Amino acid sequence: MRALVLDPQLVLRKDYPEPARVAGESIVRVRLAGICGTDLELARGYMSYCGVPGHEFVGEVSETETPNLAGRRVVGEINAACGRCNWCAGGLARHCPNRTVLGIAGRDGAFAEFLRLPDQNLVPLPDSVPDELGVFVEPVAAIYEMFEQTKLEPDGKLAVLGDGRLGALAALVLRAEGYAPVLVGHHREKLDRLAALGVNVKLEDEVLSGFDAVIDCTGAGSGLARALAIVRPRGTVILKSTATASAPVNLAPAVVNEITVVGSRCGRFAPALAALACGKLDPRPLISQVFPLDDALAAFAAAGRSPTFKVLLEP
Amino acid sequence: MRALVLDPQLVLRKDYPEPARVAGESIVRVRLAGICGTDLELARGYMSYCGVPGHEFVGEVSETETPNLAGRRVVGEINAACGRCNWCAGGLARHCPNRTVLGIAGRDGAFAEFLRLPDQNLVPLPDSVPDELGVFVEPVAAIYEMFEQTKLEPDGKLAVLGDGRLGALAALVLRAEGYAPVLVGHHREKLDRLAALGVNVKLEDEVLSGFDAVIDCTGAGSGLARALAIVRPRGTVILKSTATASAPVNLAPAVVNEITVVGSRCGRFAPALAALACGKLDPRPLISQVFPLDDALAAFAAAGRSPTFKVLLEP
Repeated sequence: MRALVLDPQLVLRKDYPEPARVAGESIVRVRLAGICGTDLELARGYMSYCGVPGHEFVGEVSETETPNLAGRRVVGEINAACGRCNWCAGGLARHCPNRTVLGIAGRDGAFAEFLRLPDQNLVPLPDSVPDELGVFVEPVAAIYEMFEQTKLEPDGKLAVLGDGRLGALAALVLRAEGYAPVLVGHHREKLDRLAALGVNVKLEDEVLSGFDAVIDCTGAGSGLARALAIVRPRGTVILKSTATASAPVNLAPAVVNEITVVGSRCGRFAPALAALACGKLDPRPLISQVFPLDDALAAFAAAGRSPTFKVLLEP
Repeated sequence: MRALVLDPQLVLRKDYPEPARVAGESIVRVRLAGICGTDLELARGYMSYCGVPGHEFVGEVSETETPNLAGRRVVGEINAACGRCNWCAGGLARHCPNRTVLGIAGRDGAFAEFLRLPDQNLVPLPDSVPDELGVFVEPVAAIYEMFEQTKLEPDGKLAVLGDGRLGALAALVLRAEGYAPVLVGHHREKLDRLAALGVNVKLEDEVLSGFDAVIDCTGAGSGLARALAIVRPRGTVILKSTATASAPVNLAPAVVNEITVVGSRCGRFAPALAALACGKLDPRPLISQVFPLDDALAAFAAAGRSPTFKVLLEP
């Protein structure tokens, strides 16, 4: 099959072996996939991952032993857990130490014609949710994760740091849930586009302070220091982006001001799908370009350029 | 009066002006004071503080307008708040943005014959608590602060990083509260002394993992990275020591494993004093040396040397 492969450089292959079905897992024909900041990091060597990247997708189940999945349009939870450890038993399979992760660790991902996932990871999409909306379920679920980890006061003063695809999505999710965040970035063109979507935006050289919570979506190691500089004493910093580079951080302000810093990764699909399906959240304006899979290398290049938000791949 | 003054080098002066009483504040004759890691950092330039350092003390009220403080043996809350801002109104005067802090910011401290504090900061010591025990109220209160910020499961697997005075005190407090922490350090002689006090100790080159909570008392910027390496997914890291130097930190593990990092500083005196007064906590074995104030420079030198735990000054 055709697939974009990291080995260790990104290369487009036309002869990549199709995944073979195993017990308890289904084969999914990918219909649409999204490029995420993590994919760009993987291409730079993060996780030393070799294989097919891609973990945001909508697909159609092409081979399965589970009758009610056959032929269904699905999205998929990316963490494939062992089902036997204490983490799995405790309902936190996303932290299973034996897990593989679609397109990130030990399991080929979605930038290909087909992928394989455990049946229990597959979530059928309602007919009312088109592919271009469904492809946001995974990253939106990751944003909703923060609501399960920490309590944000409805009238709280919230900042989102970073005007990239993750920051933009975080701001839209927060607005959909009734919050009024300020998105802080440095790309004037992106900020203008987000302002047109109703997001309250600020240039990062404006003097800001006193935020109850700051959500770091910068993707940079320096994001924590910037968040610590504008969060109020006893406030919360949520680290949403996986910054792979070490950056020097002076943690004294975190101690003196008794800040709580919460690392936050993948989330449950249910709340994300519900928000997208009912219409209260529509991130489709963030789609900058859709490329055919055959142009995946150009798509990756586009995804890394400002002022791009979301770039999709169509196998 | 005699006083140790940071200006900007540490110097012992015999002619330092005595504090003059102002409305709402009392003069305290210092009986015993403790040297803390923060004092050593101040001497290296932290906070650019100039004045008398010292914030752990037992004293005797020598001048006051408050009858029930007159002549009393007291300890003192170090944050002198404005009493008018929202933080003060909300019961978090320790975070008052207008505060001065005894021996740390804008207010001369305890390494002198006399100090001045607001009456509301002074807490009388019961006769049953001798000076050598009372001098621990402030640092013990700082340890108890973490119980108010985060929930530690009684049967949780806990680690304290750092075998200095703060780590030792944290381990003793945790034991007094029914926890069984492992203290991880690298000074064999200190670890032996702590083991003799009943603390479960480990050398830091042992392979450790899976802790529910890790309390960083290393005083080093690298403490966070070390804590992130041994805490379990969804676990908690409590930053207790104010590390003033920036250190490179890779935050990806905090995000991937969804760690909560809690900065923690000063605490309420009541639970600390109660624990010391009832006998369930006795950190006096940590007292390494007591110096007269006139030998304060030698005391600072001793406090900076391993395997010293607590060094006290007697004006």
